[in-house]
Amino acid sequence: MNDVIIIGWGPAGLTAAIYTARAGLSTLLFEGFMAGGLPPGGQLTLTTEVENFPGFPTGISGLELMKQMKQQAIKFWTNIETKTIDRIEASHQPFTLFSWETTYQSKSIIIATGAIAKRLHVPGENKFRQRGISVCATCDGNLPVFRDQTLVVVGGGNMACSEALYLSRFWKEIIMLVRKNYLRATKIIQDKVFENPKIHILFNTQLVECLGDKHLTSIKIINTQTNQETTVETKGVFYAIGHEPNTAFLKGILEINDDGFLVTEAGTGKTNIPGIFAAGDVQDTKYRQAITAAGSGAIAAIEAEKFLTSQQRNK
Amino acid sequence: MNDVIIIGWGPAGLTAAIYTARAGLSTLLFEGFMAGGLPPGGQLTLTTEVENFPGFPTGISGLELMKQMKQQAIKFWTNIETKTIDRIEASHQPFTLFSWETTYQSKSIIIATGAIAKRLHVPGENKFRQRGISVCATCDGNLPVFRDQTLVVVGGGNMACSEALYLSRFWKEIIMLVRKNYLRATKIIQDKVFENPKIHILFNTQLVECLGDKHLTSIKIINTQTNQETTVETKGVFYAIGHEPNTAFLKGILEINDDGFLVTEAGTGKTNIPGIFAAGDVQDTKYRQAITAAGSGAIAAIEAEKFLTSQQRNK
Repeated sequence: MNDVIIIGWGPAGLTAAIYTARAGLSTLLFEGFMAGGLPPGGQLTLTTEVENFPGFPTGISGLELMKQMKQQAIKFWTNIETKTIDRIEASHQPFTLFSWETTYQSKSIIIATGAIAKRLHVPGENKFRQRGISVCATCDGNLPVFRDQTLVVVGGGNMACSEALYLSRFWKEIIMLVRKNYLRATKIIQDKVFENPKIHILFNTQLVECLGDKHLTSIKIINTQTNQETTVETKGVFYAIGHEPNTAFLKGILEINDDGFLVTEAGTGKTNIPGIFAAGDVQDTKYRQAITAAGSGAIAAIEAEKFLTSQQRNK
Repeated sequence: MNDVIIIGWGPAGLTAAIYTARAGLSTLLFEGFMAGGLPPGGQLTLTTEVENFPGFPTGISGLELMKQMKQQAIKFWTNIETKTIDRIEASHQPFTLFSWETTYQSKSIIIATGAIAKRLHVPGENKFRQRGISVCATCDGNLPVFRDQTLVVVGGGNMACSEALYLSRFWKEIIMLVRKNYLRATKIIQDKVFENPKIHILFNTQLVECLGDKHLTSIKIINTQTNQETTVETKGVFYAIGHEPNTAFLKGILEINDDGFLVTEAGTGKTNIPGIFAAGDVQDTKYRQAITAAGSGAIAAIEAEKFLTSQQRNK
């Protein structure tokens, strides 16, 4: 019987493990076997350089940061299994978790399965990922490689508008590619985009292909009304078409919002089932940073520890 | 005119600076000149070794971690002033901040002035701080130096009971020193303490003196009913008599709770005045970890950036 099972090992899951294991709770962490189509380590391992995780003034690669957190979790006696949890049974305690033909029992669960930025699956997209194609303007928008470049944001919702406005702080021209003939963002944020002289919107426009050598140098786009294809020179394309939280295996078990995110009590990581907590991007519709995920992992761990202490009393 | 002024440089203030400065916002950070009786760097610089900040598997000294975060904030063009802000004027924008005879103006403010663990001011207390005397069981309770030791918790409230219960996971005997003849904790947590065979409560008892050589080895305590003094051998004393948030200069300006903590909207860092945000221990009544402070600093910074973008529109 485990005190805590943690599902997922991005910064949220590993920080949670450092805290629960160090608190003397028997901790088992499932890093997932290509769960959500990602190698263990989550979204962050796809990032080349993390500049904004505090404590690393010269930057650190996402993969290296995850390796160090993993080492730290293991140091404090976290057990790690490279398996994917397919299903959980949460109607009574202890909770039961299923992975293929094996079952695991735990007194508490922390879900930190993350969210994946949605992609378009156009040619060149994989090749230039983190070599010109980014899914996070806050993370990558200020990199020197983009200096004096025309940058492209794909999407027409709140996230796309926010990212375009963010990028317009630094760079001279931002082109938004919007599939429909209108923006889906709220009126307030739309107005900000329309008023911004650096942002140009191309409606009815889709990204067709990403081109370049080692790094992205241009993209092919198409106007879906006229079918005219154009090539745009750019060293930076920011996808902002939403995120897909890895919650499919939790549907019908935990409360999930319309976009698929786990619903938690703000600032505590508590889900609607006592004893089950969530941390990181899987429950974060707003911030999605490595450092905010790590912070929420520590919070979920502290809450899990409190929950287990309160359970002890009832025996 | 600054876009953001950040007051305080623990993990919260410095992480906020890394984020706002990197977002292209002109950022001025006040590290305070012995503000709250502490050298710059906050509570964490008083800690010898931080084992649970994710990313540092072999641990890092609190001072070193703060130095690295500071270097990172400066790298992204944060301006730092070693001055203490005495007063802020928040009735209209831009906000005005006063330090001695100088005033500063800013479009937004992030308050990260921290909280100080309360002390008893008994002889030996300063000498053995972090050499046997700790103010955080979650941080220090699992250190090998305490192996097979009788440990002492000072206090009789929720925090003291939680810390005693936490420590009882690892070690064989915990003595609680309670000044009054009852516990002030909630009934549920009291029951857990009373039921725990490892925890012994000494009521009407005060800590008189901390003794030792390089490290704490014993304490002198007094029963205030009988005036009898006793010496207890212990290598570890955990103060759990509350925290004093550094909010005196904000009274009457921002919403503050009965214990002196800034009131923020859960999980967002928003205070009751739009454009003023808070992060870290100054607004955290529950978790108070370096990593949770850092996470909340990033959140306050992202909210400040959103606030400034929304203000731009109105001009």
